[in-house]
Amino acid sequence: MPDMQKTPDTRKIPISKVGVKDISYPIVVMDKNRKFQQTVARVNMYVDLPHHFKGTHMSRFIEILNAYREEIALDKMEPILQKMKEKLGASSAHLEIEFPYFIEKRAPVSGARSLMEYTCSFVGTLGEEFDFVLGVTVPVTSLCPCSKELSRYGAHNQRSAITVRVRYRDFIWIEDLVAMIEECGSSPVWSLLKREDEKFVTERAYENPKFVEDIVRETTQKLLAEEAITWFSVEAENYESIHKHSAYAAIERDKRNKQ
Amino acid sequence: MPDMQKTPDTRKIPISKVGVKDISYPIVVMDKNRKFQQTVARVNMYVDLPHHFKGTHMSRFIEILNAYREEIALDKMEPILQKMKEKLGASSAHLEIEFPYFIEKRAPVSGARSLMEYTCSFVGTLGEEFDFVLGVTVPVTSLCPCSKELSRYGAHNQRSAITVRVRYRDFIWIEDLVAMIEECGSSPVWSLLKREDEKFVTERAYENPKFVEDIVRETTQKLLAEEAITWFSVEAENYESIHKHSAYAAIERDKRNKQ
Amino acid sequence: MPDMQKTPDTRKIPISKVGVKDISYPIVVMDKNRKFQQTVARVNMYVDLPHHFKGTHMSRFIEILNAYREEIALDKMEPILQKMKEKLGASSAHLEIEFPYFIEKRAPVSGARSLMEYTCSFVGTLGEEFDFVLGVTVPVTSLCPCSKELSRYGAHNQRSAITVRVRYRDFIWIEDLVAMIEECGSSPVWSLLKREDEKFVTERAYENPKFVEDIVRETTQKLLAEEAITWFSVEAENYESIHKHSAYAAIERDKRNKQ
Amino acid sequence: MPDMQKTPDTRKIPISKVGVKDISYPIVVMDKNRKFQQTVARVNMYVDLPHHFKGTHMSRFIEILNAYREEIALDKMEPILQKMKEKLGASSAHLEIEFPYFIEKRAPVSGARSLMEYTCSFVGTLGEEFDFVLGVTVPVTSLCPCSKELSRYGAHNQRSAITVRVRYRDFIWIEDLVAMIEECGSSPVWSLLKREDEKFVTERAYENPKFVEDIVRETTQKLLAEEAITWFSVEAENYESIHKHSAYAAIERDKRNKQ
Repeated sequence: MPDMQKTPDTRKIPISKVGVKDISYPIVVMDKNRKFQQTVARVNMYVDLPHHFKGTHMSRFIEILNAYREEIALDKMEPILQKMKEKLGASSAHLEIEFPYFIEKRAPVSGARSLMEYTCSFVGTLGEEFDFVLGVTVPVTSLCPCSKELSRYGAHNQRSAITVRVRYRDFIWIEDLVAMIEECGSSPVWSLLKREDEKFVTERAYENPKFVEDIVRETTQKLLAEEAITWFSVEAENYESIHKHSAYAAIERDKRNKQ
Repeated sequence: MPDMQKTPDTRKIPISKVGVKDISYPIVVMDKNRKFQQTVARVNMYVDLPHHFKGTHMSRFIEILNAYREEIALDKMEPILQKMKEKLGASSAHLEIEFPYFIEKRAPVSGARSLMEYTCSFVGTLGEEFDFVLGVTVPVTSLCPCSKELSRYGAHNQRSAITVRVRYRDFIWIEDLVAMIEECGSSPVWSLLKREDEKFVTERAYENPKFVEDIVRETTQKLLAEEAITWFSVEAENYESIHKHSAYAAIERDKRNKQ
Repeated sequence: MPDMQKTPDTRKIPISKVGVKDISYPIVVMDKNRKFQQTVARVNMYVDLPHHFKGTHMSRFIEILNAYREEIALDKMEPILQKMKEKLGASSAHLEIEFPYFIEKRAPVSGARSLMEYTCSFVGTLGEEFDFVLGVTVPVTSLCPCSKELSRYGAHNQRSAITVRVRYRDFIWIEDLVAMIEECGSSPVWSLLKREDEKFVTERAYENPKFVEDIVRETTQKLLAEEAITWFSVEAENYESIHKHSAYAAIERDKRNKQ
Repeated sequence: MPDMQKTPDTRKIPISKVGVKDISYPIVVMDKNRKFQQTVARVNMYVDLPHHFKGTHMSRFIEILNAYREEIALDKMEPILQKMKEKLGASSAHLEIEFPYFIEKRAPVSGARSLMEYTCSFVGTLGEEFDFVLGVTVPVTSLCPCSKELSRYGAHNQRSAITVRVRYRDFIWIEDLVAMIEECGSSPVWSLLKREDEKFVTERAYENPKFVEDIVRETTQKLLAEEAITWFSVEAENYESIHKHSAYAAIERDKRNKQ
């Protein structure tokens, strides 16, 4: 059978990313407390394509994904990228994995256990060197300092999402990164709160008002203090309870560039 | 050219809905204050198909849509449905239109003007008779009565969405339906709030705590009291600020069945 | 601590559904070939609320969900609903679970193995009786008979989604339902196709053209012939390759109503 | 009333982007054929915040948006950004607008008129200099060269989306950019096609097979040849008819960097 993808291309236009996108796939992720966690990821896999080839072989991406199916996603990022480069004759490979990750939390007063979901991502690139970015989105409550200050009682508050992406020197557990970030809103959130917990969360948020600007700054302070982390970006989005739109703030810092 | 859709089908299976889905289209909607409003809708158009025909003529749906393009969407629901029945030889036709609708509001204290967006829908069916349902989704703030009662200060609150669908005997303006529904949360929301408005909204929500159950019940009370309305459904969803999930409640009432 | 939810309500308005919505949760599903499959679901849990109670206890829904966490989702639908009725003092309970489900398939010629994802749902209601609906969405290829007939060569084709919901008398495996539905498009689809498979799929679709109307009718024929099934609905959506909108068709049949 | 946003912040952390996100808003866009087109946009507005200020004034973003409401979106990008800098005391401002845009097209054989929707975007940044990026997503049909070559008849094809972003020296109409891009798939698509048009589109796509790689390369060739354009990125996504996932390719080129 003819292999059209291998036919030469004369347009002299290299392609920076070509591959497969939006594959839903079961994966295994390391879990700090329970060793492993099975979840379902959305996967994108790309390579570069030199100008002289007409096409890449899309089925090979799926073959590689299948070959590593039962193994730990994080450990296999670099081997998968290496395999992508080999099998597709590419000089760089790119792999994006996004998945829901569950952590059992205990409610702050009652101690009632429940599962919280955090959207996480692994993004790896292998050219000359291996580059890896861990991402996590953490829901929190934010309570508006301005509203609290102005009002005789109460203060508007809302669900917020803090999205952090990090490059690191030493391995960091998702659980530890989440725990660090959850302290940067007005209060963490839980799936299960009994009455005594709801009182606690309400009062804590009221005692701890934060603008969206405060949220990204506090997260930045924590991430600057964490030695293992070499680069990061922080975004916070407040789904304002008094508006139909969001308040948003973002900061990015590369610690490697310092001095 | 052959017309395959007209060829006979022997499977004896009539189809209840067949047509085109998810067409994006500019439309004109009546505006209580400015006469007309141009917006962009998502449109679905279906007819029934008797068992003896192989297929319907999809392009005719688009031709009909184009023919009524510059005209008022609401006035043309029944004529469009009638045309769908005629052109497609159907005994029933169904038309769904969903669109963002903008109302200028004045902030409660400063009077500052801004536009709020409400997602609205027109759903019409024409078989023997014409049936029409008007839908509108209204964002509000909800403040938790339990959290207020339990806590020494503050109370968790969040953005909520109240979705109402109505059948009516006499015409109702979207503006009037929205105004009615907006009173059923702890406070309406605005796009633009100055400091004095933010104080007002915060205090008003605190003085006016509502469970998701209260929201659907108050909306029900208002809709029961509105004589022009003959049937309705109400849904409320609170995007809980202390959880990652929503609280939800729903009620449906047919006043025509009462005697 | 006060229990505000239990306080009496005098508005005389019962609520048909109240509860928690859009909880992301890991679940275990029975797998025909591998016994069990772990996946991640989106869950909604509702009960009715009599007119004389002010509110329901939202945290109890999550407690119930946690209690059944390691168990088989399908087996536990009725026990979970029973528990919801008990713990929340309700006369009816409603549980909706939607999840990606993976089936290993072999490519039609090469036999290459890969995983396909199907979106599935369990919807259960327990009032006087237990009602259960199994749902599955199956991607297929559809090739237009009209385009084939008119054109000297080629025919437009596209990805389609067939969504089937069934009530059944005897248990049906998701795998068997999927296999039945996959035959109703112009060709099934796979995650991994080698060149010989791509030839097979292309030719098979060309030999087997189907309108969206044909797809729902053939699926209806299969579901009518399956004795275990007592009620069903079928929807097909073709993401037209020659348009930006979809073609759509739907049929619903209740076999229990027959004579 | 106190102005908390103006209070000093001692954390020494400047914020690169802070503002409002996901505001739905009606806008006016220039239309090559009909002068103006009213549509509905999703808007994000951000400024930078120096380290010494605690917060920005979110309501001012909305005031600025309101002030320019009836005017042409494109003409007002720079004035709006200038106003954002002034009113918020910022050294840089960023404005993102995404909207559906409609172009009337005539079917290729019958000449039947219909409207096609294209998702467009304006992204402007004003620091020392004004930077502007125009974006447009164009749906096309793609037909697989490999499938055509291998198969005795037929070839799998599908809807694709080509997303182009450009910086330009001289003004470019959306209509002209769309026309250029539409030629880069196997065939353009239309909302309304009569039988003779469907034949034409089917045959044209079959005569004109393209890999996702070919699509981004041809688009690149066109954009390189267009002198007015100084920078561009191209992405193509094929919603594969024989898979549940997409094929994807991307290229970016800065012509200003050439010697």
